[in-house]
Amino acid sequence: MGNAYPMSNSRSYQTHLVLPPDTNHHGSIFGGKVLAYIDEIAAITAMKHARSEVVTASIDSVDFVSPAYVGDILELESMVTSTGRTSIEVYVRVMTRSIRTSEKKLTTESFVTMVAIGEDGKPIPVPGVFPEEEWERKLFETGGARQKLRKAKRENTKERRKLLDPEKE
Amino acid sequence: MGNAYPMSNSRSYQTHLVLPPDTNHHGSIFGGKVLAYIDEIAAITAMKHARSEVVTASIDSVDFVSPAYVGDILELESMVTSTGRTSIEVYVRVMTRSIRTSEKKLTTESFVTMVAIGEDGKPIPVPGVFPEEEWERKLFETGGARQKLRKAKRENTKERRKLLDPEKE
Amino acid sequence: MGNAYPMSNSRSYQTHLVLPPDTNHHGSIFGGKVLAYIDEIAAITAMKHARSEVVTASIDSVDFVSPAYVGDILELESMVTSTGRTSIEVYVRVMTRSIRTSEKKLTTESFVTMVAIGEDGKPIPVPGVFPEEEWERKLFETGGARQKLRKAKRENTKERRKLLDPEKE
Amino acid sequence: MGNAYPMSNSRSYQTHLVLPPDTNHHGSIFGGKVLAYIDEIAAITAMKHARSEVVTASIDSVDFVSPAYVGDILELESMVTSTGRTSIEVYVRVMTRSIRTSEKKLTTESFVTMVAIGEDGKPIPVPGVFPEEEWERKLFETGGARQKLRKAKRENTKERRKLLDPEKE
Amino acid sequence: MGNAYPMSNSRSYQTHLVLPPDTNHHGSIFGGKVLAYIDEIAAITAMKHARSEVVTASIDSVDFVSPAYVGDILELESMVTSTGRTSIEVYVRVMTRSIRTSEKKLTTESFVTMVAIGEDGKPIPVPGVFPEEEWERKLFETGGARQKLRKAKRENTKERRKLLDPEKE
Amino acid sequence: MGNAYPMSNSRSYQTHLVLPPDTNHHGSIFGGKVLAYIDEIAAITAMKHARSEVVTASIDSVDFVSPAYVGDILELESMVTSTGRTSIEVYVRVMTRSIRTSEKKLTTESFVTMVAIGEDGKPIPVPGVFPEEEWERKLFETGGARQKLRKAKRENTKERRKLLDPEKE
Ligand SMILES: CC(C)(COP(=O)(O)OP(=O)(O)OC[C@H]1O[C@@H](n2cnc3c(N)ncnc32)[C@H](O)[C@@H]1OP(=O)(O)O)[C@@H](O)C(=O)NCCC(=O)NCCS
Ligand SMILES: CC(C)(COP(=O)(O)OP(=O)(O)OC[C@H]1O[C@@H](n2cnc3c(N)ncnc32)[C@H](O)[C@@H]1OP(=O)(O)O)[C@@H](O)C(=O)NCCC(=O)NCCS
Ligand SMILES: CC(C)(COP(=O)(O)OP(=O)(O)OC[C@H]1O[C@@H](n2cnc3c(N)ncnc32)[C@H](O)[C@@H]1OP(=O)(O)O)[C@@H](O)C(=O)NCCC(=O)NCCS
Ligand SMILES: CC(C)(COP(=O)(O)OP(=O)(O)OC[C@H]1O[C@@H](n2cnc3c(N)ncnc32)[C@H](O)[C@@H]1OP(=O)(O)O)[C@@H](O)C(=O)NCCC(=O)NCCS
Repeated sequence: MGNAYPMSNSRSYQTHLVLPPDTNHHGSIFGGKVLAYIDEIAAITAMKHARSEVVTASIDSVDFVSPAYVGDILELESMVTSTGRTSIEVYVRVMTRSIRTSEKKLTTESFVTMVAIGEDGKPIPVPGVFPEEEWERKLFETGGARQKLRKAKRENTKERRKLLDPEKE
Repeated sequence: MGNAYPMSNSRSYQTHLVLPPDTNHHGSIFGGKVLAYIDEIAAITAMKHARSEVVTASIDSVDFVSPAYVGDILELESMVTSTGRTSIEVYVRVMTRSIRTSEKKLTTESFVTMVAIGEDGKPIPVPGVFPEEEWERKLFETGGARQKLRKAKRENTKERRKLLDPEKE
Repeated sequence: MGNAYPMSNSRSYQTHLVLPPDTNHHGSIFGGKVLAYIDEIAAITAMKHARSEVVTASIDSVDFVSPAYVGDILELESMVTSTGRTSIEVYVRVMTRSIRTSEKKLTTESFVTMVAIGEDGKPIPVPGVFPEEEWERKLFETGGARQKLRKAKRENTKERRKLLDPEKE
Repeated sequence: MGNAYPMSNSRSYQTHLVLPPDTNHHGSIFGGKVLAYIDEIAAITAMKHARSEVVTASIDSVDFVSPAYVGDILELESMVTSTGRTSIEVYVRVMTRSIRTSEKKLTTESFVTMVAIGEDGKPIPVPGVFPEEEWERKLFETGGARQKLRKAKRENTKERRKLLDPEKE
Repeated sequence: MGNAYPMSNSRSYQTHLVLPPDTNHHGSIFGGKVLAYIDEIAAITAMKHARSEVVTASIDSVDFVSPAYVGDILELESMVTSTGRTSIEVYVRVMTRSIRTSEKKLTTESFVTMVAIGEDGKPIPVPGVFPEEEWERKLFETGGARQKLRKAKRENTKERRKLLDPEKE
Repeated sequence: MGNAYPMSNSRSYQTHLVLPPDTNHHGSIFGGKVLAYIDEIAAITAMKHARSEVVTASIDSVDFVSPAYVGDILELESMVTSTGRTSIEVYVRVMTRSIRTSEKKLTTESFVTMVAIGEDGKPIPVPGVFPEEEWERKLFETGGARQKLRKAKRENTKERRKLLDPEKE
């Protein structure tokens, strides 16, 4: 598949109101709810890019740097930042906006790797992606390094898994 | 807070049936659904240990190594693996069991860091944790190293964030 | 409140994947699901404009001109098109995008009227709005006429209601 | 299809408790939740009449004349008020009942047009409907006029759409 | 509280469409979904009678005599059949109607006991109930016998509980 | 099917956090939510035992002996206690644990009867079950008596049903 699309092509936006069922006793949103939103927008972004169904292969570590409370607005933004043969790396950023003050703060960000799959559920090739703006280029060019780190980490994990409570697996 | 509890004390189990609304077109579960389950059991485990409300501070990177399909059973298991002053590291493992074959496969695993919070929403000290079995000891002893890695990674992220689409923040 | 914001200020976007629980037997989305999405994005848009909580006062008639199916992507876009003393008129458009073909079709559009409310649940004044582009100006200038039509229709309804099954009210 | 059923035949009732996840900060129900309930009961009513699956073609404008709060009971009532070749007009009324006082107030009412569809998703003919009581007759006889108004309004909308942000479609 | 209301006063109706997320692989509804609907309508009925909040004290044994499938319509009907000092016995019947054939079949029925509670969460007295029709009278007069049976069964259960896995409680 | 599995084989555990949407005004959990959890874990337990899909045939009467509040943890435990030709009796116990005090109280318990079904939705034979511990043996040996009681009760119900509002069925 020789074709490629600009990063801006599949860029997506999402806004959510933080509601009582999404929060704990203190009215602050569950991490799991934010993670589910991240996965959803990453999947939509990857599907728009690949024009096929996708599955989540991995999500990089996520730090929740500031909380969101009932009545706040969550704003998610996502874009394809690099591609492999069948995989698509999506960058997702989550901001929280207070209604009263209109102040926006970073809640979290992460890279999600999606894999395009065909009718038979097997990985299929994806189109490439290219940057148009300076800051897009930086994200794009560092994609390879991030992918290498992920592979190294996966090897590590396999090692550790051997140590661990083996009769359970 | 001088007291400490054994790792076995707050160990928790969860079983979920994979249902159509949790899955895509191919009937395979959304990553976001699994992440929400991981966060939920990690929170319950940390609450049982800390005897207080908790919030999610971070989740280490998550690799989805095999899919789960509609009709499969997800089995989650979680335990506190180390503690800081106010934070609690929880290890979560997700296995998928096929109904037909009774075969179990690893779907994913991760470490989630929870922080205990008091009535005012501020971090409060947590009890310590100690291992009783050999493999628990291995998880426990490597807790400090994992925590150091997380800090290093957070520094990195701050660097990268400066490069990125700055007018957006 | 003398201040006013440009229409672009509170413009909002939303993307949703159509999932099995949102659809009937034929896999086509329920009208009620689309209506709930329209109300949600209209409320978020109005809250961003008014910087206060809002309630839905009315929604103009909605025609569903083409269906959306499981696996399609719904794209919503909304903006404030005119304001009264305490009310905010929000225009919402819903497009459906097929993953396979990337083709986009209009599903529906409507005008929703939101009323800003204060801590005591009573209507409070809202900032004004102004257009910056030609097509925004057209929407803005026709706001008064739409509002007049709505009031006329409300009078009509009161008439009809008197005819109808009166012991029931 | 020469047969016809009385309006009373498919009349339906629904009662819902207003719960925290359905409400905003002030504990008052989201308009979108009420709209979803209206669409659901209209679909059920039309399915009972047509004995086939249906889709929502349109909903007339909806005015929310009084709010409903957490702990209130919503009472919906719906009936087929007229039919076309393949379309079914359903009248829905939503009352709110306060638990404490047992007082009932009109929250909203609307007419929803449903279209019966066959196995292939295409419109199919529906049975007729006839009134048995005086007030039913009034609703029935005004059905044609309402339908004409809707068609006129649809034409209008097409006009307006041409003016509007055309590169978006 | 000397007053009493007729059984017809709080009689309630509910209709639900069976949707994919409520069903298993074979498209037949989960028993747990039906039980949740039964509890919901019983609570609404008891609240209408008692004009206060209520909690579920018990539900008599439930036999699911015929399944309901995706696309079927569930019709619930409920009424207060007898009252104690603070408790309210509600009879609930669930019928399934096939869209195609319009045929109705009994899915299940049960008696639910609700207790009225005041602001402090403590039981409060409830109004009495009386029958107006012959078949209502039969249900009403057998209320005492059902209540006696429930008490006897509760004693039994306490006995059995002593035998069972005692270190677990 | 000559084979049989020990009761411990399919024993299952579940933990749930009580959240606002699951509770009434007083923050106490709906009975219907607990019933849905009971049915879910019973189905999972029966599926693990039978290695096939199952449907709920009946649930014995359920007494809610102590409430659970927002922020509490529900702990469910379930096991197969006896089997028929195609039916599986599952015992479920629900405990509530207060976060603050770590105190555990019995919320409720019940026996659920599940029937294994094949691809065609018809009952299929299930493997047997046998106890390994003393208290398991007591539950196992009383299974036949419980089943007899259920059949007797079903006969009774059929009698009563004849008395009741007959034109409704
Ligand atoms: C993701 C998955 C399809 C990869 O399958 P696989 O057999 O490893 O396939 P391949 O080796 O051909 O790898 C396919 C691509 O996925 C990438 N990949 C695999 N595992 C990955 C991981 N953990 N993180 C990031 N990328 C990963 C590979 O690098 C490869 O990318 P490339 O084609 O761009 O070079 C498979 O692991 C899977 O099905 N996982 C479950 C996915 C899922 O259902 N997630 C939802 C919750 S369980
Ligand atoms: C909307 C609501 C607050 C209006 O209250 P009210 O007593 O009529 O208040 P006012 O007469 O001061 O009207 C306030 C504004 O709402 C507008 N408004 C009232 N009813 C309206 C309707 N049906 N459609 C559009 N605008 C409406 C008025 O024109 C006025 O606008 P302005 O201040 O810009 O001139 C009130 O009807 C209400 O609470 N409705 C329920 C809202 C709700 O809870 N919706 C969710 C589902 S029930
Ligand atoms: C409704 C729909 C089936 C009509 O299709 P169509 O090609 O216009 O079909 P027809 O011209 O044969 O019209 C069929 C009937 O629908 C009526 N109809 C069409 N659009 C309508 C509208 N906006 N409002 C009211 N009735 C409408 C026609 O008057 C006709 O009625 P009749 O047979 O009683 O005379 C089609 O527009 C559609 O699929 N819309 C999406 C429906 C949907 O999925 N809704 C859920 C949310 S998107
Ligand atoms: C349960 C069901 C399959 C039994 O069908 P049936 O035609 O009575 O089948 P059988 O007579 O062969 O009985 C099958 C088994 O179910 C048992 N059974 C039937 N009704 C029962 C009840 N109400 N309670 C307990 N066990 C019951 C029988 O004793 C028999 O057990 P065994 O094989 O171990 O001896 C059928 O009643 C049904 O489909 N019910 C609806 C189930 C459902 O969909 N539940 C979810 C909510 S509606």
